[in-house]
Amino acid sequence: MPKVAIVGYGQTKFSTENSKIESVLLQCTKNLFDSTSKLNQKNIDAVLISTNNNSKYLSAILSEMTGIQPKISHSIESLCNSGTNAIVAAYSYIVSGLAEVVLISGAERYDSPGQILEWDNLRGEFKHPIFWASIFSKSYKRKYALTDEDLALVSVKNHKQSTHNPFAISQKAITIEDVLRSKKLTEDLRLLECSRPCTGGASILLASENICKTFTDHPIWITGIGQKTTSASFTKTSTFYDMESTKQAAHSAFQMSKQKPSDVDVMEIHDAFSVCEPMALDSMKFASPGKGIDLVKEAYSSENFKINPRGGLIGSGHPLGATGIAQTIEITKQLQSCAEKRQVDNASLGLVHNMSAGATSSTVLVLEN
Amino acid sequence: MPKVAIVGYGQTKFSTENSKIESVLLQCTKNLFDSTSKLNQKNIDAVLISTNNNSKYLSAILSEMTGIQPKISHSIESLCNSGTNAIVAAYSYIVSGLAEVVLISGAERYDSPGQILEWDNLRGEFKHPIFWASIFSKSYKRKYALTDEDLALVSVKNHKQSTHNPFAISQKAITIEDVLRSKKLTEDLRLLECSRPCTGGASILLASENICKTFTDHPIWITGIGQKTTSASFTKTSTFYDMESTKQAAHSAFQMSKQKPSDVDVMEIHDAFSVCEPMALDSMKFASPGKGIDLVKEAYSSENFKINPRGGLIGSGHPLGATGIAQTIEITKQLQSCAEKRQVDNASLGLVHNMSAGATSSTVLVLEN
Repeated sequence: MPKVAIVGYGQTKFSTENSKIESVLLQCTKNLFDSTSKLNQKNIDAVLISTNNNSKYLSAILSEMTGIQPKISHSIESLCNSGTNAIVAAYSYIVSGLAEVVLISGAERYDSPGQILEWDNLRGEFKHPIFWASIFSKSYKRKYALTDEDLALVSVKNHKQSTHNPFAISQKAITIEDVLRSKKLTEDLRLLECSRPCTGGASILLASENICKTFTDHPIWITGIGQKTTSASFTKTSTFYDMESTKQAAHSAFQMSKQKPSDVDVMEIHDAFSVCEPMALDSMKFASPGKGIDLVKEAYSSENFKINPRGGLIGSGHPLGATGIAQTIEITKQLQSCAEKRQVDNASLGLVHNMSAGATSSTVLVLEN
Repeated sequence: MPKVAIVGYGQTKFSTENSKIESVLLQCTKNLFDSTSKLNQKNIDAVLISTNNNSKYLSAILSEMTGIQPKISHSIESLCNSGTNAIVAAYSYIVSGLAEVVLISGAERYDSPGQILEWDNLRGEFKHPIFWASIFSKSYKRKYALTDEDLALVSVKNHKQSTHNPFAISQKAITIEDVLRSKKLTEDLRLLECSRPCTGGASILLASENICKTFTDHPIWITGIGQKTTSASFTKTSTFYDMESTKQAAHSAFQMSKQKPSDVDVMEIHDAFSVCEPMALDSMKFASPGKGIDLVKEAYSSENFKINPRGGLIGSGHPLGATGIAQTIEITKQLQSCAEKRQVDNASLGLVHNMSAGATSSTVLVLEN
């Protein structure tokens, strides 16, 4: 089976701009073309769109706007992990031989309809993500005797790191006191512990082994893929202090890539809320249960950028359909040693963790140099 | 590379019912499980949803409702050919080794937001599909000296055939006079020449060669796939009397399957409007340009069900996200010799043609016994 590489990317700054979804898609795609010099529209066999936006036929619209006439062309939606779902679909089109080169563009507006899962009536009126995040926070803190200060550190670290990411919505470092004094949304969740829905786009180009050297001297290989959906309602999950779908997705991704957590040099974690970062680290076995927070503390004190170098969702902003793609671009840059002030030394193996709706579904990707 | 088979299916009746999209998805999926006796939820590696509905996370919702915990799970949208796009994605997941068994459920409500392409301002106020269909009708009739009666026959044939399809919205045969006397929507298009948006669902199960015999004694193989998107606006197409995307998609599908038009025993054609059926027949080289209508006349007079046996979109109704799947189910039944009163004799090779937005994109599938 052919190997699949990441060979190009482009992003927009994440912001609160009131842009049309088509304009955001066009901009990140244009940025990809501008930074991938030998790329011609005729090379592209498939155009996939990752979004929660309600506009239809966006893949054909983006194709027309950019002069591409693809074979395969459609949108993909799975709430917050739409982006990595689109990357896995692209991988699959290439391995199956239906495509050699696939463009994926993900975009969202600040007012995305994907922010609230209308369906889940088990949640009663508590459909907004802050309610599951709040229950997770209470449960995780109680189970592992963590303090509000412990979780606040996730946000402090990621806000600090995002000051080195020119595409991030937050360009300002904050303190633990800032987090604890920010608006209390629920008993266990404050405003500065939440990622922020925003407007933004991210495009990535995947190619088969045969053709990848046309576009880059430094392809980054997708060597591990793991995905799992356990339910749609977080109220169906067995515990509120770990992430079953993330656990299974990571296990599959490590198995496929024949790697293990200790091999990972740099990682993007889906920190939709502060508690998600240590929980995901536990669930992927980077730490024993409850000890993920120690890795956060270590990364913060040693300033090593290993966890969420671009600032995570909390620092970068969370334009749903673009997030998984932006995460994957960051790991690609790290493995290409071109992550500027955020660069992790000698990074050769990276991981992306992207999830939806209270970790009811997760994607984990392993990328290698 | 592993071969991919269709091994199960389920449908709902197409209707004007005001059902929730989740209920329609559940019903067609339940019907698939009921008719695929050895199928267990644990067999299913991926759940794909085909729809234009604005609800999010439907694949996880359907999975939870039906007790499936898939690895891969997302929605796919490409207006009217969302269904075959989802089938091609499923094919690809299986060939690439990421999945062995994939469930695809497509559904739509009568008030689907996919009926009008809001984006295409080149059309001015003429965004409703009847306007491109009207221009196609005028152009095709003028180019090939066809009459209104000629095109009306497409609708008469398909309404007649749908009386043998228990899932079709129309259960009543009509005459050429009925068509010509029906409400004039534009100078060149009457109400009974149009397919009707409706509520309906269709589910299909794909499996790899290794496992397919678990679920059926009579797997139907997907041997040819062709897809093409030329633009998003039909006003960008070079002529209004043929379908460039359909031409290219058919060429690719025949090439992949090493078959040719004369090998095809039975076919589903995307007759969103009467003119589409002969135009698509021309474009796929079943007939020389302008002669597609002769095949329609021949099929009608010999009552052979070869073209759109279930009644096409005009007779069956057109629930956008379900249509491509329902078409593929019909060809599967024909090749399994279980299409009841609609059965074509000795059908061993079939074709599905599914398109979007004035034939700006097309999918063609070749299925074999």
